[in-house]
Amino acid sequence: MLVEKIKNKESGIVLYGITPPKAGTSEERIAEISALQIERLQALNIDGLVLYDIQDEKSRTEVKRPFPFIETLDAFSYSQDYLAPLMVPKIIYRAVGKYSAEQLGQFLSDASTTENLTVFVGAASKDQAVSINMKDAYALKNRVNQKLLLGGVTISERHQSKGDEHIRVFNKIAQGCDFFVSQGVYDVNASKNFLSDYYYYGLENNIPLVPILFTLTPCGSQKTLEFMKWLGISIPKWLENELLHSKDILQKSVEVSEQNYLELKRFADEKGIPIGCNIESVAIRKVEVEASIELLRRVSQ
Amino acid sequence: MLVEKIKNKESGIVLYGITPPKAGTSEERIAEISALQIERLQALNIDGLVLYDIQDEKSRTEVKRPFPFIETLDAFSYSQDYLAPLMVPKIIYRAVGKYSAEQLGQFLSDASTTENLTVFVGAASKDQAVSINMKDAYALKNRVNQKLLLGGVTISERHQSKGDEHIRVFNKIAQGCDFFVSQGVYDVNASKNFLSDYYYYGLENNIPLVPILFTLTPCGSQKTLEFMKWLGISIPKWLENELLHSKDILQKSVEVSEQNYLELKRFADEKGIPIGCNIESVAIRKVEVEASIELLRRVSQ
Repeated sequence: MLVEKIKNKESGIVLYGITPPKAGTSEERIAEISALQIERLQALNIDGLVLYDIQDEKSRTEVKRPFPFIETLDAFSYSQDYLAPLMVPKIIYRAVGKYSAEQLGQFLSDASTTENLTVFVGAASKDQAVSINMKDAYALKNRVNQKLLLGGVTISERHQSKGDEHIRVFNKIAQGCDFFVSQGVYDVNASKNFLSDYYYYGLENNIPLVPILFTLTPCGSQKTLEFMKWLGISIPKWLENELLHSKDILQKSVEVSEQNYLELKRFADEKGIPIGCNIESVAIRKVEVEASIELLRRVSQ
Repeated sequence: MLVEKIKNKESGIVLYGITPPKAGTSEERIAEISALQIERLQALNIDGLVLYDIQDEKSRTEVKRPFPFIETLDAFSYSQDYLAPLMVPKIIYRAVGKYSAEQLGQFLSDASTTENLTVFVGAASKDQAVSINMKDAYALKNRVNQKLLLGGVTISERHQSKGDEHIRVFNKIAQGCDFFVSQGVYDVNASKNFLSDYYYYGLENNIPLVPILFTLTPCGSQKTLEFMKWLGISIPKWLENELLHSKDILQKSVEVSEQNYLELKRFADEKGIPIGCNIESVAIRKVEVEASIELLRRVSQ
């Protein structure tokens, strides 16, 4: 279904995003975690499950990372070994620069064209040492597994500073990307600016628009807020004030994220731009995970 | 009534802003223009009429001014000589640096404390040669006509780059400003960022908030849009796209301005921040003036 929806460039796709358990977790504990995730997610109406591939982004900024970087299990192995009972397509992220061409080729060859999709993530900065660049990765993918659906990452904040994010997106479409997942959205205006340029450029150049899935992520504490900012998520000052002064920052962030998505959806629907969302929890505290589930329920209605 | 509303720090004040006829206009023509303005405005429910004091802002930017700078009649003389039949308080702008201390003192002494208010405008940039600075102008005003209500100018766009516009506003309040008029608003987010910091700073320091009147200005052409940007008005990219691609840019800008004000009003009302608006037409074409009147009707309802 997800594959069809993307091929048909449909609006309203809803994904949920998780990070695999950290590397070194005991098999027993992994089984517990995955059972809980399956239980949480199988009752929900999602089109697909995103499994992130975390990379240390310290090369991107001088500012200290608010949460330590922790290596996780491989997203694809975890998905195959533990999440098979969850009958939704798995979107496996690949931080391309972490892998050799052989490793990436093996994954692409093993991935199912009906049960899997993948999203290629580039280096966090130009200074990061990589073993394979994006151009080669796209070529490899098209050679090894042409039919596997491929997504890209889009960052509205980059559009604010450089103004060419829509061009980057169209370049990635030309290289085979069929959908995009955004960075976490707290600045609706930045996302509308990107969507607007994406729309008018597509219209003027007669290029069909592919779905843009906006990531929504609840925020449960001032520290999580700092972490989101560290990740490069822009938060309007008034919204930061609202969150920090609210009695319940987590609940407030759920309301805000729902409103933000509704505003983007209204804006996109008017123009016929296909958008959807990807709901995630960047933190691992139980209340924050539950808040992300609540947000998922709200936006799927 | 306007004086009372400002002293009571009320929300919902509605002003209309005009520029006096250009210098050198024949007396006959001035009489015609003023008669038309009176006819247009007297049926409308406004709290006051703003009369601008245009200064050439060329020292502020290297970019060429899209419309030529034209000297106008003195706002106070025009108001007294031609607009007396219009029974609303006149808010006389004073670009302070244009006057000698004697000239400014004379105006302050002549102004009525019930029928007039004034707004002091500082230099367009640090490089502009001035004969009296703002600090001295405030002192002069407090000495010559303590009771005359004084307003200041606030620029949300400055808050985006410097983050201290609320501090500037509180400093001006300390020097006697009882209300503020903003620059033209097309970037609601920038205005919400300013209002939010204004609110929380006032709350934390126990300083009562004075009314902030947001200027709304219809835009009738791409050239007017360029002029607004030249003036320093920030316009989100998506909104600029909407305006430039709309079939009727003027009508679209009226709708957008109404929506922007409603969004600001909702935001401010929730927190009890007193805001109002000032509707103007920066252009002089008849359709643009009429659009500003339509906008006025809409927001006063």
